[in-house]
Amino acid sequence: MKNILGANDEIAAANRKNFSARGVVVMNLMGSPGSGKTTLLEKTLARLADKIKIAVIEGDLFTAKDAERIKRAGVDVIQINTAGGCHLDAAMIQKVCASLDLDAIDLLIVENVGNLVCPAEFDIGENFKAVVLSITEGDDKPLKYPLIFKESAVVLLNKIDLLPFTNFDLKSAREDLSTLHPTIKIFETSCTTGAGLDEWCTWLLERTKI
Amino acid sequence: MKNILGANDEIAAANRKNFSARGVVVMNLMGSPGSGKTTLLEKTLARLADKIKIAVIEGDLFTAKDAERIKRAGVDVIQINTAGGCHLDAAMIQKVCASLDLDAIDLLIVENVGNLVCPAEFDIGENFKAVVLSITEGDDKPLKYPLIFKESAVVLLNKIDLLPFTNFDLKSAREDLSTLHPTIKIFETSCTTGAGLDEWCTWLLERTKI
Repeated sequence: MKNILGANDEIAAANRKNFSARGVVVMNLMGSPGSGKTTLLEKTLARLADKIKIAVIEGDLFTAKDAERIKRAGVDVIQINTAGGCHLDAAMIQKVCASLDLDAIDLLIVENVGNLVCPAEFDIGENFKAVVLSITEGDDKPLKYPLIFKESAVVLLNKIDLLPFTNFDLKSAREDLSTLHPTIKIFETSCTTGAGLDEWCTWLLERTKI
Repeated sequence: MKNILGANDEIAAANRKNFSARGVVVMNLMGSPGSGKTTLLEKTLARLADKIKIAVIEGDLFTAKDAERIKRAGVDVIQINTAGGCHLDAAMIQKVCASLDLDAIDLLIVENVGNLVCPAEFDIGENFKAVVLSITEGDDKPLKYPLIFKESAVVLLNKIDLLPFTNFDLKSAREDLSTLHPTIKIFETSCTTGAGLDEWCTWLLERTKI
């Protein structure tokens, strides 16, 4: 396991160097299956695609369902199928990036496999990680799956419109997140009502200027 | 990977033999983080604990939050912490079962780590697998994460009370499930309204008589 992670880190470092040289900012977007990553991505592209040049890599076990959805937003998208594998690794990213014109891209968004555990362990050469936690998953998830929240620069508390129909304790979740990762940025978002999306996109846009 | 799975299968076979000799039926309960496994388990125990003798093994990366919840239901519970590991394996189950009085148990429920990918790959010696898919996760999940639905004898479409607030297509999800696994048993459940829980518990009780 140590060897696998070591080899992965080397390729991730090479990816990071390559991205940096080409002026590409890379976000590794993670979260449970059904947390709303792809829908959030669609809404994000609709707000940012005329401001910066974005490309997307979609990671899934099987199917190209997500890539097909993203393609409709009019951005370049590459589907990676892991054939059952539970996360993306640096080598997969390196391979598909050969077919992207990185010089023409400002922001590369990598939507990882839906999984709150394994993707957090594999550096793919991103600038920062983002994790989507939907309200319907429960407020106990940060403490139960701490690594992904420690590793991520930002968390999106998504499907916030469903808050009244659940027993999710927003105050408790925010406290746990701050305990785990004091500098983590927290957004409350809903792709149904649009809540928080402008703030999120403003923040993301700022990150591409670093 | 092949070696890891091979070694796991051997221990799983020993577990299965042991469970069978002691008259214990074992259910491996799986699903995404926040699909509602623990709450479903609480409701299940409330309905069945006076009919059969049940014990629970709780698998989590960290914390004993779930075991503490289950303990309140008055059944024997053992917490396994995987320390970041994304699934339970047969050796973990073998180890903790040494401290259970298996002869006194009719049904052993193992709540796996919240993950729609990795747990499905590891036989722990169970009689059957059950997967919880919450409505808020989206109707595309069976085709995107097929293995877990192919491996499971039963799927619980949980949080069915939230159906009106989502775009989940129940007909489409049922069709995809039947395509992937024609004999899979499907329940629509809600731990908020109680919908489907009696039917589910009746089915589960029947399984312990096999």
